[in-house]
Amino acid sequence: MTTRAKQFISADQLLEHWQGHRNLTRRVIEVFPDKELFEFSVQGMRPFSTMVVELISIAGPALKGIVEQQITEFSEEVFQPKTKEEILARWDAETEVINHYFNQISEEKFQETFNLFGQYEFPVYQNILYFIDNEIHHRAQAYTYLRSLGIVPPFFWERF
Amino acid sequence: MTTRAKQFISADQLLEHWQGHRNLTRRVIEVFPDKELFEFSVQGMRPFSTMVVELISIAGPALKGIVEQQITEFSEEVFQPKTKEEILARWDAETEVINHYFNQISEEKFQETFNLFGQYEFPVYQNILYFIDNEIHHRAQAYTYLRSLGIVPPFFWERF
Repeated sequence: MTTRAKQFISADQLLEHWQGHRNLTRRVIEVFPDKELFEFSVQGMRPFSTMVVELISIAGPALKGIVEQQITEFSEEVFQPKTKEEILARWDAETEVINHYFNQISEEKFQETFNLFGQYEFPVYQNILYFIDNEIHHRAQAYTYLRSLGIVPPFFWERF
Repeated sequence: MTTRAKQFISADQLLEHWQGHRNLTRRVIEVFPDKELFEFSVQGMRPFSTMVVELISIAGPALKGIVEQQITEFSEEVFQPKTKEEILARWDAETEVINHYFNQISEEKFQETFNLFGQYEFPVYQNILYFIDNEIHHRAQAYTYLRSLGIVPPFFWERF
């Protein structure tokens, strides 16, 4: 029996927290008018659809790489959606991919360093927190886009 | 010895993660022109200074309430800064307040329900994740404000 550092949260709780955020992001995608999802942005920034493609290109592929110990280059080129429906369908498919791979990561593995996409060499738990933070960050930019468009975004605290 | 759920992160790691985010938020406050910090906003939204006062009114007071088992109403009225320097000084003071109280929360306590500000009855770990998420959320809105103003915000990944 080794002594273990004071726990903040369990893996199950983190996954539930993350999927709650993903539910909210899904609502934000849904509330965008189709045209603005692909075209609207603020000076020098990307449309929200492009940010969502980034999010989709990170979470599932990164977890797969961590579990399979495969260092693959980051790529957004694989998925080029033309409609909101395509994005939402892919979002939902990724929900299962995330659950599948996340649950295979052991407690010890969360603490090990992984060279994500051959570029980001950090402990696995930091990489995963980064995925979630990055999602919150881009989604909040989308909140501002929606406000600029005169559309009321979903409540930030509505997750399930 | 009780069996414990698979750990995602320790309390120390979460605190470091949070303070890293707070460092980045401090940089975002710094990069705002004084006038725009207090006056600029996008349709129906608040200036970033007001959001920062909200963040300052949550973290420290909430942790104090959790540790001292005191349910106090939420209040933003106590702190009404007039300058960026006042905000930054208070931000730095809160860094110590957060460290002080966070470190007194036990592993068991993180899992207990607390009625935050007499309004938000959730496990303590969920309340704390909410503080961090809420900070990322409002800071990202400030990123969009900065871009609208033609100002390049700090790198999202620069934390220490």
